[in-house]
Amino acid sequence: MKQDSIRPLLDQICTHMGNEQDRGAVASYIPELACIDPAHFAMSVCLPDGTQISVGDAKIEFSIQSVSKVFTLAIALGRHGDHFWTRVGREPSTHVFNSVQELEARDGIPPNPFVNAGAIATTDCLLVGATPKETLAEIVQFMRLAASDDAIFIDPDVASSEKETGHRNWALAHFLRSCGNLRHECELTLGTYFHHCALAMTAEQLARAGRFLAGIHPAGNLIAPGHIRSINALMMTCGHYNGSGEFAYRVGIPAKSGVGGGILAVLPNRASIAVWSPGLDRYGNSLLGTQALEILSQELCLSMFSVAPGMASQG
Amino acid sequence: MKQDSIRPLLDQICTHMGNEQDRGAVASYIPELACIDPAHFAMSVCLPDGTQISVGDAKIEFSIQSVSKVFTLAIALGRHGDHFWTRVGREPSTHVFNSVQELEARDGIPPNPFVNAGAIATTDCLLVGATPKETLAEIVQFMRLAASDDAIFIDPDVASSEKETGHRNWALAHFLRSCGNLRHECELTLGTYFHHCALAMTAEQLARAGRFLAGIHPAGNLIAPGHIRSINALMMTCGHYNGSGEFAYRVGIPAKSGVGGGILAVLPNRASIAVWSPGLDRYGNSLLGTQALEILSQELCLSMFSVAPGMASQG
Amino acid sequence: MKQDSIRPLLDQICTHMGNEQDRGAVASYIPELACIDPAHFAMSVCLPDGTQISVGDAKIEFSIQSVSKVFTLAIALGRHGDHFWTRVGREPSTHVFNSVQELEARDGIPPNPFVNAGAIATTDCLLVGATPKETLAEIVQFMRLAASDDAIFIDPDVASSEKETGHRNWALAHFLRSCGNLRHECELTLGTYFHHCALAMTAEQLARAGRFLAGIHPAGNLIAPGHIRSINALMMTCGHYNGSGEFAYRVGIPAKSGVGGGILAVLPNRASIAVWSPGLDRYGNSLLGTQALEILSQELCLSMFSVAPGMASQG
Amino acid sequence: MKQDSIRPLLDQICTHMGNEQDRGAVASYIPELACIDPAHFAMSVCLPDGTQISVGDAKIEFSIQSVSKVFTLAIALGRHGDHFWTRVGREPSTHVFNSVQELEARDGIPPNPFVNAGAIATTDCLLVGATPKETLAEIVQFMRLAASDDAIFIDPDVASSEKETGHRNWALAHFLRSCGNLRHECELTLGTYFHHCALAMTAEQLARAGRFLAGIHPAGNLIAPGHIRSINALMMTCGHYNGSGEFAYRVGIPAKSGVGGGILAVLPNRASIAVWSPGLDRYGNSLLGTQALEILSQELCLSMFSVAPGMASQG
Repeated sequence: MKQDSIRPLLDQICTHMGNEQDRGAVASYIPELACIDPAHFAMSVCLPDGTQISVGDAKIEFSIQSVSKVFTLAIALGRHGDHFWTRVGREPSTHVFNSVQELEARDGIPPNPFVNAGAIATTDCLLVGATPKETLAEIVQFMRLAASDDAIFIDPDVASSEKETGHRNWALAHFLRSCGNLRHECELTLGTYFHHCALAMTAEQLARAGRFLAGIHPAGNLIAPGHIRSINALMMTCGHYNGSGEFAYRVGIPAKSGVGGGILAVLPNRASIAVWSPGLDRYGNSLLGTQALEILSQELCLSMFSVAPGMASQG
Repeated sequence: MKQDSIRPLLDQICTHMGNEQDRGAVASYIPELACIDPAHFAMSVCLPDGTQISVGDAKIEFSIQSVSKVFTLAIALGRHGDHFWTRVGREPSTHVFNSVQELEARDGIPPNPFVNAGAIATTDCLLVGATPKETLAEIVQFMRLAASDDAIFIDPDVASSEKETGHRNWALAHFLRSCGNLRHECELTLGTYFHHCALAMTAEQLARAGRFLAGIHPAGNLIAPGHIRSINALMMTCGHYNGSGEFAYRVGIPAKSGVGGGILAVLPNRASIAVWSPGLDRYGNSLLGTQALEILSQELCLSMFSVAPGMASQG
Repeated sequence: MKQDSIRPLLDQICTHMGNEQDRGAVASYIPELACIDPAHFAMSVCLPDGTQISVGDAKIEFSIQSVSKVFTLAIALGRHGDHFWTRVGREPSTHVFNSVQELEARDGIPPNPFVNAGAIATTDCLLVGATPKETLAEIVQFMRLAASDDAIFIDPDVASSEKETGHRNWALAHFLRSCGNLRHECELTLGTYFHHCALAMTAEQLARAGRFLAGIHPAGNLIAPGHIRSINALMMTCGHYNGSGEFAYRVGIPAKSGVGGGILAVLPNRASIAVWSPGLDRYGNSLLGTQALEILSQELCLSMFSVAPGMASQG
Repeated sequence: MKQDSIRPLLDQICTHMGNEQDRGAVASYIPELACIDPAHFAMSVCLPDGTQISVGDAKIEFSIQSVSKVFTLAIALGRHGDHFWTRVGREPSTHVFNSVQELEARDGIPPNPFVNAGAIATTDCLLVGATPKETLAEIVQFMRLAASDDAIFIDPDVASSEKETGHRNWALAHFLRSCGNLRHECELTLGTYFHHCALAMTAEQLARAGRFLAGIHPAGNLIAPGHIRSINALMMTCGHYNGSGEFAYRVGIPAKSGVGGGILAVLPNRASIAVWSPGLDRYGNSLLGTQALEILSQELCLSMFSVAPGMASQG
């Protein structure tokens, strides 16, 4: 990826998205998300040479929500290693992101760490030997280090709204606990979970935070390369819930979405990309964010599954 | 990938696999597969420069079975384009490869072209405007062109055994037909399906046949680059049935397995790899074949999800 | 039940049903059923004293379809005794009557003998030691004896239409066979099944055929009283597919419906009742037939679950 | 049923059950239930003439648990009438009694009032316009009236143990709430639910409490006869969770079980029967309690589905 070719393309995408009429539906289950203006759009790209190119509202904070699951997984793998996988699976899901059904069918082992049940179990792992406050401090600290930005914070209003109204997540937590797959009280684990989902970040910060997964963080490897590979693989097969196959087909880059409209996409050795547009598709993934990544991927041949044009067309 | 570093590694893997005690269980539902010696092991790698490196029983034919679904998909996409996707989905499955359950839950639209139901619908697409004989001729012709080898043939005994005993596939075909998602008589479509699954190929032939998906076929692009990208993406998310997430995690290369013990793995722009070991794991994928690919991927850092070691460890 | 009170009530119900606008949808999957006039309505009641009271089109034949499952179960229990239950369960179903999903979830053991899968397995039991022709002769013979009428016959056009178009049933048969729960070729078993479903009977004949289940057949017990009890219990919990709970709630009489619009209802020691109206509800049960039975049950306090009005209101 | 023939039979059953080795497994999820001696057995029968015949530990209290759902349903139907059915279905379930899966598949409408989800929704209905304390007072009052015994009480230790450990029920409550099918805070509804499940009663008291459903309460009808019919129908099709079909087949009497080992069986116009044996079968129903009812039903021809022996054998 050449810096020169990226900026005009990002500008073009940003203009295109600004004119798009069908912007999806903003998440409405808590007032803090429901009131977000669906007109927002931002995109930011970090390259191996340290440059960062951004367009749109890339300096406006949004709730990263489920994108935070990538970072809690990184910390959990670092702390528990392969033992982590005794509690969470590594397979895509076919039901909605907050399905209890799938959890019951699997006897309390979530299919993967990126559906809600799996992320709650991941958070529970982080609480081993640490208080919620310490755990959240560690997560925020990790985010700040990853993003090279000490200004990152958790939005307490979002966290407490989730706690009030997140009945589906409470159902998941109690179900996990009934299966012996939650070591701490639901209040503790969910309280922590709701807080890290409430991390407020800009697209610029998020793109920088993803650099370590692309192996292009200026401070080198924040976590073991083997864990980076694991996380990227899971983002490819499970990063967009039951729309993951479709995302791999259309975009072809490991990525994780959040219900706040953010998506973090990671191209190993080449780029870390963040996109934000608050309106969601029927799977709960950013509608325009996905479109933007699809255009970027197509125009620059970024899909991992592409063959080099020159080679394929030489016949 | 350097040719020099590959041969010793392949030799080492071949020796290792020869000594492995737990070889999985050979498919037993038809006598032609049940009688295969589980001691077989073969691996073959085709590189962009035209070289091919093989070890083990790489010149012994085996039944490629579901690996053929990659090639019928290639032909179907070529003929029907995006219209093909009105009949088959693009999402991973969570049930066994021959599940009717999943098909019923999706109102007769198979989750993807690589589970049996999806592949039967794909074969049905190929029969539009062509007889089974013509369709099979086209498939064989495509395989021979892809593998640069006119000796490839269909094993009639395997095909007729499948027809006799493949009651689960008959159930799938009738179910598809009851939903209006099979245009031809079950006998026609399944007859054709059983025959292309009965293609007999060596690991060498299979590796060569996969070159066009890696964009390294000597004759250039056999199909549109966009379709290559689609097929590779689907192999990554759906190529190993309900064990696809696990395969992506462990190996990180788009690949498709068959119940005959073969796996075709495709690394865009870099390599086409075939492996064969008849014993299967609980998902119906080659047990040692998967292990062999995992070792190869790890040793040569082939996983698409890896970051360059130098970069990640520079910190 | 007094004969004198029944006739006026049946007349009243018949008039009421004649005026009903919403008559449900006639089964449309085969032409022989699709062409039936939804205006038909018939009801017939057999009492212990040998009298039979009928209204409406009670002398017009209709295809009894799944009502035949009651009679094949009676014969199968007589021949195989409790051993029969190794192949079929005794629990209600929650999916549609021809669901493969439920069968797969239960590893090939149908939930009960009254869903299609269970009835196909029942027919398969009848074929042990007998040809399809002999089995059908036995079934017809049993029906004639039960109904005291030698004119009962199988409609060959209905049977052959089913064979052509019954892809869901073919899917079920092949699935059963793939699980080892079908001893004969699908063609044999399904051929027999389609034929006994194609029995053509009048409401008068059907009511008489049900007398042995009420213990009021003039020739005494055609089958063991224990088997009568079993069949009646199953009709109560499973006789209306996934609408069985609703039927028990509204009508409270063991009964079995058929897609031809017939229902046989059995009140032990008191009455055998047949009703026919071709239009179906969303579960595949006769819409007006159910309403007619509900009115009859309410007016005469026939629900097994009723308390005697005098007793309950004495307080 | 003749009083004279019942006592010796009950004595015989009691002796038989005392000698039974396989007594099932006592519920172990709360200490109060886990410590119950599985040797207990009691049976009590109330007849229309006002007599009551009891054997075994019929004066020892046990936790009636889910048997209480029959009584809360009676009160809820009395208060809300048919409007009640907008929130709960009337169909049998095929999953375990505390399944969330089934609730999710039905979009938050429990299949029937006797699985946990349905009973929680029923309790929520009772809280409309009343505090938990008032609601519990009403329930206890109803039980005392039904049982003609003012000594009936709620065991606070059982209630509070449930509250601590009943994570599956918390999951159900939160799931219901997330679907808008719980009007009150989970704490309020579940608190009330856990308390009425903790009603402590003897077999004698329970048999008397069931008289109104048999229409043989000395004070006449406590609720509308139409509601009695509804409740009895639901006990037949749904009273034993996913073992209801089997119970109807073996016993043939409307009945409701509880995880404390109690079963209330109601034979309209003829008898109200309570049985208690703490060991459970795999569905969570009393193992010996079911056997005892099966013997009683067989010996006295009590199954609703039986034909009179004289009639059936007269041929």
